[in-house]
Amino acid sequence: MSKNLEISYLLDFYGEVLTEKQRDVMYQYYNEDLSLAEIAENFGITRQGVRDAIKRGEATLITLEEKVGFAKRYRALQDSLEQMHALAKNIRFLNRERCGSDFEINQNADELLALVEKLEEI
Amino acid sequence: MSKNLEISYLLDFYGEVLTEKQRDVMYQYYNEDLSLAEIAENFGITRQGVRDAIKRGEATLITLEEKVGFAKRYRALQDSLEQMHALAKNIRFLNRERCGSDFEINQNADELLALVEKLEEI
Repeated sequence: MSKNLEISYLLDFYGEVLTEKQRDVMYQYYNEDLSLAEIAENFGITRQGVRDAIKRGEATLITLEEKVGFAKRYRALQDSLEQMHALAKNIRFLNRERCGSDFEINQNADELLALVEKLEEI
Repeated sequence: MSKNLEISYLLDFYGEVLTEKQRDVMYQYYNEDLSLAEIAENFGITRQGVRDAIKRGEATLITLEEKVGFAKRYRALQDSLEQMHALAKNIRFLNRERCGSDFEINQNADELLALVEKLEEI
């Protein structure tokens, strides 16, 4: 993941710990791709002020991730859920092909799929 | 969940954001159930100093959870995993009882179980 994508990802996770202004500055820089000059104008501060806010914000997000590690764990969770999704669908398929669509197996696979989909939104 | 259990739970999640001393004080109070006097002696500070450190630590943990909400999401994840565990085991059982232990269904259910167990440790 590129540095910018990584920061944008951390901003989603931990953005609330920043001040509102710092968060807005970073959002415009990382998610809306505005230039330092454009952001400076939006907030009525200097380009250097914007640069400093971004650097401080990055440091906060990176340090927090180093300490609590949720972004990394969340990524591992999503990877596993993708595999679980495929497995549950495959069980439903195999059940249809080989077990005459046993009602309970199907129901269990459906419930599994629903839980996986719920967790994908967690 | 009682207040104390809740704080102990948050300490597991976010303890690393506290200073080492603050974390140790809270650990002795919440996880080892020592008294303020015992903790004060261990750290060579006053009972009031211990009380203050605990209050500040609690505030940090609670605020962080309000902002990023991982403890809550983690609990929801564990609840879902428990249900998924039961469903995958049931599919394996139904497959044995009704589908003559179809090899691939069994394999898919085993892989699902392994993923659930991996996530239970995430």
